[in-house]
Amino acid sequence: MRLRKLACLVTALGLLGSTAFAGSKAKGGDASVARAGIEAGNAKFGEAFQRGDASAVAALYTEDAMLFPPDSEIIKGRKAIGEFWKKTHDSGVKSAKLTTLDVGTGGDVAYETGTVVLTVQPEGKPASTASAKYVVVWKRQADGSWQLHRDIWNSRAAAK
Amino acid sequence: MRLRKLACLVTALGLLGSTAFAGSKAKGGDASVARAGIEAGNAKFGEAFQRGDASAVAALYTEDAMLFPPDSEIIKGRKAIGEFWKKTHDSGVKSAKLTTLDVGTGGDVAYETGTVVLTVQPEGKPASTASAKYVVVWKRQADGSWQLHRDIWNSRAAAK
Repeated sequence: MRLRKLACLVTALGLLGSTAFAGSKAKGGDASVARAGIEAGNAKFGEAFQRGDASAVAALYTEDAMLFPPDSEIIKGRKAIGEFWKKTHDSGVKSAKLTTLDVGTGGDVAYETGTVVLTVQPEGKPASTASAKYVVVWKRQADGSWQLHRDIWNSRAAAK
Repeated sequence: MRLRKLACLVTALGLLGSTAFAGSKAKGGDASVARAGIEAGNAKFGEAFQRGDASAVAALYTEDAMLFPPDSEIIKGRKAIGEFWKKTHDSGVKSAKLTTLDVGTGGDVAYETGTVVLTVQPEGKPASTASAKYVVVWKRQADGSWQLHRDIWNSRAAAK
């Protein structure tokens, strides 16, 4: 009977353990772990964008992602988003350097705020930079990686 | 001993039950419930904004909220956000009509996409409208209501 009591306690503690684990995951699965995954995603974005690689950029977004470029309607879906970034690259935006300001999480969702510096150099013209701020909603995938799900930005500097 | 076994099972099931409950809450606590709360928040925003009531607008945001107006640096904190909206109202933006497009959730976080139509009428001038699209990250409060936590928008129409 002592053994049985022990078995009962082990079962109960086991369940408690998994509850606690589920709880900590629900609380955001550790915002610093999410932030590391998101910063890795941003690094991949910068590299793929610089190469003008539409399909590599598209693969960083969820299938039903939405992009909100300034002065444009909403762009929906991975494929259309990849094409938008390819067009942006080909128009002379050479690179996008993303800097994460903060990350918060809830379940498999994370929201990131940050700033981006674009280096712009249309053919035959001198290079310049433009600075924007952004909010991105990320979704955690089954393999633990994060994909961009909602992506919106606007200018930091007052229009002249 | 049969009783003891039953007690053990009840304990185990009780723990399982609370795990399941935590799980369903973590999955987003029903996106349609969140959407109703968010649309209620948007209705309050529209009313408070139209009155030019800075403190009522501010109260709809979390204490550490961030606002991302176009052509501006990030505005941080409830008080500064209330003042921004008051200034916007006083500059001639008479009303803001918000339309939610979709809502997704993770734990106590929800993200909303939508469009807004602003009616602008500076003193002595005819009224016009401007249309923008937005992403808002909302946070569920202890009482079940939702507050704006990250708020960013940009223009829908191409600049001319």
